[in-house]
Parts: sequence; C-alpha cells; structure tokens
Amino acid sequence: MKNDRIAVALLGAGRIGQEHAKNLASFPQVEVVVVCDPRIEGAEAVRPLVRARDVTPSPEEAVNRNDVDAVVICTPTDTHAALIEAAAEAGKAIFCEKPVALDLTRTQQALAAVAKKGVAFQIGFQRRFDSGYAEAKRRIEAGVLGRLDQFRTVGRDPAPPPKEYLAKSGGLFLDQSIHEFDIARFLMGEVTEVNAWGTVRFHPDAEELGDIDTATTLLRFSSGALGVVENSRRAVYGYDIVTEVFGENGKIVVQAEPKTPLREYSKDGYRLDHYHFFMDRFGPAFRAELEAFFHAISNGKPPGPGSNDALESLKIALAATRSLKEGRSVKLTEI
Amino acid sequence: MKNDRIAVALLGAGRIGQEHAKNLASFPQVEVVVVCDPRIEGAEAVRPLVRARDVTPSPEEAVNRNDVDAVVICTPTDTHAALIEAAAEAGKAIFCEKPVALDLTRTQQALAAVAKKGVAFQIGFQRRFDSGYAEAKRRIEAGVLGRLDQFRTVGRDPAPPPKEYLAKSGGLFLDQSIHEFDIARFLMGEVTEVNAWGTVRFHPDAEELGDIDTATTLLRFSSGALGVVENSRRAVYGYDIVTEVFGENGKIVVQAEPKTPLREYSKDGYRLDHYHFFMDRFGPAFRAELEAFFHAISNGKPPGPGSNDALESLKIALAATRSLKEGRSVKLTEI
Amino acid sequence: MKNDRIAVALLGAGRIGQEHAKNLASFPQVEVVVVCDPRIEGAEAVRPLVRARDVTPSPEEAVNRNDVDAVVICTPTDTHAALIEAAAEAGKAIFCEKPVALDLTRTQQALAAVAKKGVAFQIGFQRRFDSGYAEAKRRIEAGVLGRLDQFRTVGRDPAPPPKEYLAKSGGLFLDQSIHEFDIARFLMGEVTEVNAWGTVRFHPDAEELGDIDTATTLLRFSSGALGVVENSRRAVYGYDIVTEVFGENGKIVVQAEPKTPLREYSKDGYRLDHYHFFMDRFGPAFRAELEAFFHAISNGKPPGPGSNDALESLKIALAATRSLKEGRSVKLTEI
Amino acid sequence: MKNDRIAVALLGAGRIGQEHAKNLASFPQVEVVVVCDPRIEGAEAVRPLVRARDVTPSPEEAVNRNDVDAVVICTPTDTHAALIEAAAEAGKAIFCEKPVALDLTRTQQALAAVAKKGVAFQIGFQRRFDSGYAEAKRRIEAGVLGRLDQFRTVGRDPAPPPKEYLAKSGGLFLDQSIHEFDIARFLMGEVTEVNAWGTVRFHPDAEELGDIDTATTLLRFSSGALGVVENSRRAVYGYDIVTEVFGENGKIVVQAEPKTPLREYSKDGYRLDHYHFFMDRFGPAFRAELEAFFHAISNGKPPGPGSNDALESLKIALAATRSLKEGRSVKLTEI
Repeated sequence: MKNDRIAVALLGAGRIGQEHAKNLASFPQVEVVVVCDPRIEGAEAVRPLVRARDVTPSPEEAVNRNDVDAVVICTPTDTHAALIEAAAEAGKAIFCEKPVALDLTRTQQALAAVAKKGVAFQIGFQRRFDSGYAEAKRRIEAGVLGRLDQFRTVGRDPAPPPKEYLAKSGGLFLDQSIHEFDIARFLMGEVTEVNAWGTVRFHPDAEELGDIDTATTLLRFSSGALGVVENSRRAVYGYDIVTEVFGENGKIVVQAEPKTPLREYSKDGYRLDHYHFFMDRFGPAFRAELEAFFHAISNGKPPGPGSNDALESLKIALAATRSLKEGRSVKLTEI
Repeated sequence: MKNDRIAVALLGAGRIGQEHAKNLASFPQVEVVVVCDPRIEGAEAVRPLVRARDVTPSPEEAVNRNDVDAVVICTPTDTHAALIEAAAEAGKAIFCEKPVALDLTRTQQALAAVAKKGVAFQIGFQRRFDSGYAEAKRRIEAGVLGRLDQFRTVGRDPAPPPKEYLAKSGGLFLDQSIHEFDIARFLMGEVTEVNAWGTVRFHPDAEELGDIDTATTLLRFSSGALGVVENSRRAVYGYDIVTEVFGENGKIVVQAEPKTPLREYSKDGYRLDHYHFFMDRFGPAFRAELEAFFHAISNGKPPGPGSNDALESLKIALAATRSLKEGRSVKLTEI
Repeated sequence: MKNDRIAVALLGAGRIGQEHAKNLASFPQVEVVVVCDPRIEGAEAVRPLVRARDVTPSPEEAVNRNDVDAVVICTPTDTHAALIEAAAEAGKAIFCEKPVALDLTRTQQALAAVAKKGVAFQIGFQRRFDSGYAEAKRRIEAGVLGRLDQFRTVGRDPAPPPKEYLAKSGGLFLDQSIHEFDIARFLMGEVTEVNAWGTVRFHPDAEELGDIDTATTLLRFSSGALGVVENSRRAVYGYDIVTEVFGENGKIVVQAEPKTPLREYSKDGYRLDHYHFFMDRFGPAFRAELEAFFHAISNGKPPGPGSNDALESLKIALAATRSLKEGRSVKLTEI
Repeated sequence: MKNDRIAVALLGAGRIGQEHAKNLASFPQVEVVVVCDPRIEGAEAVRPLVRARDVTPSPEEAVNRNDVDAVVICTPTDTHAALIEAAAEAGKAIFCEKPVALDLTRTQQALAAVAKKGVAFQIGFQRRFDSGYAEAKRRIEAGVLGRLDQFRTVGRDPAPPPKEYLAKSGGLFLDQSIHEFDIARFLMGEVTEVNAWGTVRFHPDAEELGDIDTATTLLRFSSGALGVVENSRRAVYGYDIVTEVFGENGKIVVQAEPKTPLREYSKDGYRLDHYHFFMDRFGPAFRAELEAFFHAISNGKPPGPGSNDALESLKIALAATRSLKEGRSVKLTEI
C-alpha cells in the first residue's frame, strides 16, 4: 500500500455512512474514490461531502476496483459478512461497523476469510477511541488502579429503535449491550461467565418480538473480578454511558460531562444538560477510530479492535442471551 | 409518656454509643438518666457528654428503671435480641442499632416481644435520614421518576473491620450489604429474588473465615424492576456510597459531594476530596434518626424504620448468603 | 480560669443567639449559667436549650456575675461596644458577633478596653472556621499556591434584610462586604487600597436610604496582588459565597457544593440544589468558631480572629464606602 | 456570489492558518483555491490539507484573483488592515482574525474601506461560537435571567507568548483582554466606563517592555450593571476561561468542564483534568465561526461579529490601557 495516500471505497450511505463520510473528507491522506449504495441517490448525496470521483450501486464493483486500498463498511448488518469476505478476497484493508454478523458461525466464517488473506481488519467499537475510555485504558495499563476488582457499566439509549430495526437486531444483548461487553473486555480482560436478568418494562415492540428493553447482567472476568452491565432501551434524559472500574488503589469513572459547558442557577438550584444523541457524545471517537485505522494501515501495522474483539464480544452477548432464556449462569466456554 | 421530656437509658458506651451520646445531649427534650456499659469506665467516660445522673454495668438494671421512658441500644450485636425483649417487657420505647440478630429465628422472637407489648421500636438504618436519601424518597413518592425500572447501589468501606469483628459479623451480606438492602427496599419496594456473586479479592481474614470481601448482587423487585448491589470491604479513596434509581421519567443519583467544599487546581488538573469515615458522611443522619425517634414517641406515633424493615432486610441478606453458597438465584419466599 | 469547665453568660436571645445556644449546649466543658435578654421571654425560651440556671433582662448583671468566665455577645450591633467594655472591665473572656461598632472611634475604644485588661477576645467571623476556608488557609500557608497573584470573592444574600435593619446597618460595605473583606485578609494578607463601584439595581429601600444593593470592588494587597469582591443583596438561587485564590502554582476555589447530595436527571438535563440559608451553609462553622474560642481560653491561648481582625476589616469597609462616595481609589492609610 | 460553492483564498499559513485550513477542508461548499504565505514552504505545507489548487507568496495576487470569492486572513496583526483594505477593494467577503489593528485610526480606516465597498466582514472572536457562550446568549436574550446586574469573566493563558510577540502585541489589554471585552459586550451590552488595575507579578519580559502580566478591571455597562475582568498571562493548570452573568432571576456560568470525561479516585480524593491549550477548548468554536461566516455569505446575509464589534472591543482595551496608565476611571467617550 502506498503510505502517503489511501484510496477508499465507502460502502453504505445511510446515517452512519454519512458520519464516516464527514470524517473521511477531513483526512488529508485519504481519498474516497467511490461511494456505494444500492440507493444510488444516497450515494450521490454523500459524494460531494467526500469529493468522491465515482458512485455505484454495486458493492462488488466498489470492492473490486483496482484503485481501492481500503473499504469502510457501513451497510446493514446482514450484508457485513459477505462484504468482509469479498473485500478480504480482493486484498483490501477493511473497516467494518459492528457486528460482523448476529450468529457465531457466520462471524467465524467471515473472520476466517480475513485471516486467510491476512488483510487488515478493524471492527467499529468506537468507544475505545473516546478520550475518556482511552485514558482509562492507559491509566489501568500503567497500573494506576493496581489489581482490578469490580466493573460496572451502563448503556441506556434515549429511545428504542424502530420496530423493523428491532426485529432484525438480534435482541438487546447482541444489538445494544455488545458495546458494553466490548468495553468490559477492553478495560478488564476476558469474561468467563455471565448471568443476565432482563425484562420488558415499557416497550410493546420488545414484548411482541420476544425481546427485552431492560437488563442487568453479571459478568465474571478471568481475573476473578466481578462486573455488572445495566441496559435500557429508553432514558428520557438522553444517552447514558457511564463506566466504573474499581481496583486496589482506587477507581476510575468515565462519565460524560454536560454537553454544554454552562450552568444555570435559578430558584430551583442549578441545572446542566446531558448528551442526548450518541453522535454528540462519541463524535470525536468516530473520527478517532477511522484515523487510527488509516494510521495503522499506512504504517503496515494491524489495526484494532480486530477479529478477536469482534468475536469475543459476540460470544458474551450470546451467553447473556442464553442465560436470560435458561434462567441460569452461562459460562463462555459453553458458547 | 410525658410529651415534654423523655428519660433515656443509653446502653453501650462504645464507638457508636459515644456518637449517639453527642446527639442525645443536644436534644432539649431528652434527658439521659443512665449510661450502661459492662465496662463501667466506658460508661463513666460517656456520662459527662450527656450529663447523665447515673451509670451502671447492668443492662437489666438500666432497662428496668421506673424513671426510664426509652432505651437506646448500642451494645454488641449478640446482645440486641435479649435487650429488646427485656425493654419490651418493661414497656420502654426502643431504638436499636442494626441488626436485631444474625439469624431469622432469634430476630423473629425479639420482634414478637415488641409486637406483643406494643412498644415503639426503631432499627438503626440511619441512611434513610440522610438528606440525599430522604429527598430521593420524597421525589420518588411524588412520582417524579414515574415507573421505576432499575436500581444500583454501591457500598464500599474504607477498610475491613478487625478479624474478631468479622468472625462474628455474619458475613459480608449480613454485616455490610444489609444497609444497601435496606436502601433498596426504602426506595424501590420489596425484593423477591436475589442472585449474589461474591469472591475474595484481597483480604486474608475473609478467606480464612470462609467469608468474602467483594460482591455484586442482582435484585429483583416485586414491581418487576431490576437492581444490583456492589460491595467491597476496602476502598482506598474512602467510604463509597452511591445509589441510582432509574425510571420512566429520569433518574435520581444520591452521591456524596466532596467532603470539603474546595477545589485545588494545579498542573495536574483539579482535585476534590472524598469522605473517608462513615460518621463524616452520615453524621447528620445519625442525629436525624434519633430526632425522628424521639419526635415519633413524643407524639405517640410509631417510629420507623421498624420491625418489618429489620426483618425484611435480614431476609434479603440471608437469601444473598444462600445464593452465593448454592450458586443460583434464590427467591425470598425460600427464606 | 478553670480548665475543665467554663461558665458562660449568653447575651442576646435573638436569631443568632439561639443558634449559638444550640452549639453551647453540645460542648461538655461549657455551662451556660445565665441567658440575658431585655425581652425576658426570649431569654426564657432559650434557657431550656442550654439548661441554664438563670435568666436576666440585665446585661450588666449577667456580665458582672462572679460565677461567669466568658460572655458570648449576640445582642444588636449598637450595644456591642459597651458590652465589650463592661465584660473587659469585669475580666471576662469575650466572644462577640461582628462588628464591634460601625465607626472607627467607637471600635478602637472598645478594643482598647480589651487590650488594657488583657482579656481574651474573639470576633464572630465564622467563615474562617468553615472546612473549605480553613483548608484553603492551611494549603496556602503550606505554600501549595506559591506566590499569590489574584483574589476574587463573591457575597450574595438570598434577599435584602428588612428596611429597619438596613437603616442601622452602616451600608452594604460595613454590613455585608465586611465578611468578604475579612476572608480577603485571612487568605491574602493586608489590603492597602480599595476602589469600590456600587449601584442600586433593584431595591427601593437601598435607594431611599442612600445605600446600594450591588457592588464590585477592587482590592490591592500589600503583597502587590490584585483582588475583587462582588456583592449583591439578592440572589434568587440562594446564598452565594465563592472564593478563588490564584497563584503561581495554581488556584484554590472554595465553593459550596450542592446542599443535598442528589442529582435529578430529567429530559431537561440534570439538576442540583443550592444553599439558601446562611446557617445551612455555615452552621458547622458557627459551631467550630465557638469550639475554637473555648478551646483557646481553656488552654490560656489568645483566641482569634481578634481585635486586629475586627479593626482592619472595618477599615476596608470604611475605605470602600469612601471610595464609592468620592468616585476614586482610596488608600487604607487614609482611614 | 454563487450559493453552492465558495472559492476561498487562505492568507497566512502559520499556527492559526493551519487550524482554519483543517476546518475549511471539511466544508463541502468551500473550495480553497489558493494558499498564500510569504514563506512559500508554509503555504506548500498547508496546501494538501485543503487540497488547494495554487500557492503564492503574494497576498496581493491571492486577494485579487478573479476566481476568489472570500478571503480568510490569518497573517500577522500588522498586516491585517492593509489586507482588509485590499480585499474590500477587490470586492471579496472577508474573515479576519482579531484585531484589525492595534490603534484606533488604522482600525477605523480599514473598516471604512469595508463599509464603502459593502463587502461582508467578520472578525475572529470565536468564543461567541462556543456552545456554552452561544447558549448563554440565547438564554439571556430569551429573558431567562431578567435584568442583568453583574458580570465577571476570567481570561488566563497557560503561559506568556514569546517576547517578540509581546513586543508587538499592544499590551495585555489589547492582546489578551480584548477577548474578554468582546464577551462582555456580547452578553451584557455596551461598556461605558473602565477602571483597570494591572501589575507585573512574574514576567520579566512584561516588566522590560513596560507591559503587565496580571490585571483586574472594572467595567460599567450602559445598562448600569457592573462587571469585572480578571487576566493573567500564566496559569499552570491551563487555559482558564470562566464567565458569570448574574441577574434578577439567577445566574449563568460558562465554565469549561474537564477536558477528559474521566474521574480518578485515589487516596487523595478524586481528580479531573483541565484544558491546557486554547484550541482544545475552543476548537469547535473555531470551526463554528467559519461555518457561520460561509453560511451567512452563501445566504447573502451580513456575517458577525462585524466591524462594530471589532471597533468597540478595541475601544474598551484602549480605555483600560489609559486607565492603568493614568490611575483613574476612563469613560469610553474619552476614546
């Protein structure tokens, strides 16, 4: 690969594709040569953002272009695995939104194709690139907390996704909690056992689809530390992502500060605002993950989080799903 | 009982007895007539704090004095039940430090004596009287949060108690988590099921005694809401008590602000301190619980938290203990 | 003086007298032998709080009792100087609410009487005993900030005092800002020059009385550092006391944390409360100042803040008053 | 002007020019056609960031290109006025970093050229575009605070600029405080009188150049409200920008939250970080001001802050400079 210029095919011009497009446009060494979306108007709409040469409705065409070095996959989940395989086959570096697939076999197949061709692969767990989470990781690795004993993370979305999305989402653990499971692994190491309690508290769609909207899940780590993940599909105050790692020498809490640096004092005390939209909270992380991806491939280094991270977080989600269904603790070795 | 003056026997002149003594001295309507401690020097040391008329090594004598209206029991746990029974028999109003006893039968016996004599009874769950917890309760009851969906509370002590204390403590769930279980019931209602994960992370004494030093425990409430309790016997940054109630309309977090209202900015950013000693954090609550007790009995009203609160939190602790031992969820109906 | 028991005459049974009474009742070594108030019902009402032997309407009688070691003066300002003189003459230790008097001559006379008799004297600048201000002082003296360069303090009351009080108050600088001026001296050292800008923004009483309700005042310190004091007679969000000391190595901000340790998250973000009543914010400081007074006199040490502190803060207030009137900077040497 | 595409000449490829370049690259409707810097290597270095067609060492050439719609002036201060005049003459829309010039006459000349040609003009007071300041403005205009009574703002830089920069800076008030003066006007309205106290506390360069490094400055607003500005050339904890507007119904504080959303608890309490570099704190504001500029000119609307804002803040800075020199309050009408 040429070190000084990376030619990119952007696959998918939906919401997340548009976000990535803005970031792609701002990297001097990156040139988006083609935007691909089956809805060609979508691709056309994104084209000026990235000053792309071409658009195409065909991912095969985009992936197999000779002038493409890397693909950024932002298409619907059920197309990820096939596109990963096609891109691997074509020898392209791959950045793919999470998840690879909703089942283990398909995920393993796609990742095997990546491994076989030895192409660079990064999965879109953007939180790892948030300044708070990245700094937490650095301090933990530097031994600031010493031995780690407890972990807690919260993931609450402002509102549930549309029913059609939910129906294909794989359920709360695979769709939502998987970000929390990735952060758990990122900061604490491997998970060995899961006990998930979940319930429907408010969402008729979840009920109808046999899904849940609320969950509190125990995690046991290979180090012996204990953890808990709390999820909800709706929080009226916004997007609630808080993580606490407790250890021998103290604790680190990653916790969004108010969105706007402003306090209003009135006769009711004082008030601060809260992030509502995930892109407001993690916008810089979305940019940073792509920057890291291109930096890695420019330097011939493996990007990350990679195949193993995609696989292991999926296993935890599958274990949680089974735990809920069977009403018992599930060991990761069972998955 | 005379409304305008309450004569009190203070039983126990140890650490917690001394704290209560300071508060007793500051209530104009309360007169401590006798301080009782088998270590008579202890009783003598507390006497001037409360300007008490008499001291005695004999709790029987103190409890049965005609000029005593109420007893404040601060003796070791294993004496609580017998003293409650004696005080009930003597027709005195009773304030007793938690717990009544470490086993269910003995607790039920003592509380039956209270019920039979119809005396006023309050158990020392002081956190309910903290301005943060009390205000959380008021707002929740006023419907501020609407339907409650998730609960999380943390209880971490700065350092483990001495081994002799641990040996008789009943274990982490009965000794430490019981405060968290009480707050769970206070804010969320009854608990129906428990799944406790616990482990020894650092404390040789806990290991030796077959106890644990770290636990993360799932709670299911009768409303269907989910909860989690995190405990540790040691937190180097101090006494860590944080509670979050999440519901339909938002969430309430009760969380100690810095102990000292001061921020120091230096080249490392800025720094605030943290409560270390439980009495610094909950000193006003210890005062307020006694004030509420005397206010209730002065007005002929039942004080609280009372017998049922003592009993139910014990049951949760016993269920958690069994859950840990048997490696499964335990329903409260099993206890 | 007897080291182990201090007999006190409490002079004044008004609002501040009642507050001090509660604290006096809680010090084991203190015995309030007499409560004095010209309104004898007021004295009678306070008596049970402190379990005082006697009440009297006559301050002369109270001050001159042989069985009194110390006086706590909480009477109206215009009686302070005479009572200080009487108590000094009688050889009693003196705690007096601020100010000694509203004019310099009368203040100097009273303090001369104190000096002549060599009695212990403490003026009621309670903020020095707040945990935040006391800790700021300790860190500054320990050199944490190095050279001090800038100072800012805010003093805003929730609401203006009654007109009758205002009329006799000496004006905003002598009545309100004097607390800020004392804290300025406490943390930064002597003030050498003042430039006060003041105005009427909202209060008809202030207008009518030729007073102001809003002021921003520059201070120059003998060290060369610069400072500013902001005052308002009304803040709807409550009692607003914030201080910042900026120096070579950083800054220290003393700033009340929320009154209630609780955050409420709703669709409008999150909300905390604010102190409204000065006694809620500085209650522990009012207790601590008396404790320090009795501790000092029990140990034969001079209590503080003392005569010089009473005098110097008054001079700054007089300089600010003159600066405002004459529209120019005023040096302290002019006062 | 073509609505859908704006051709830009970027003048100046130094630190601030590079920052603007990154943002220019990310606006789809903007095309940077030429980068100009007398140091042609500087222009060459910036060129790929903005994918510019050309570079030139000659500002005259850049400004007068037919294919340029707008200029972004990031050159040294002493070239601003001439470039503004040249660009106005050429009929280009102008974005210029502050200040126009360090003296009133030159500023007025340049702005007269803008007025004569009727070209769009925006001055680089980026703080107005910070989410905190912008939201404060919105709330104040919506009447949230009611009548405004007091204003305080702090401006402290992490470290003084190089001596050569200081020598040509115009002094602390014109170079640094002018940002505070602009925010004062933005939130509070016009300033009518200034009283500036300044001093050298630490910086030999300031001393040598007859400048100051520390200042506390009173402002009187035309509304009658009072204000204060605190400045320092060095704050070890970083870039310290805090603003408080106090009014009838409460106060609004704009105050940077920690740079990293992370709290570390250790035995010393807990610690958060602080912004150090102005571009970290105001990076999004730098982007937003350019976005607003292009949005305005695309829509044929006057951008802002504009000529009057450039002029009035300069007058306040000149008044403060004179106040310090003459040791008296200076009315803006004197300037």
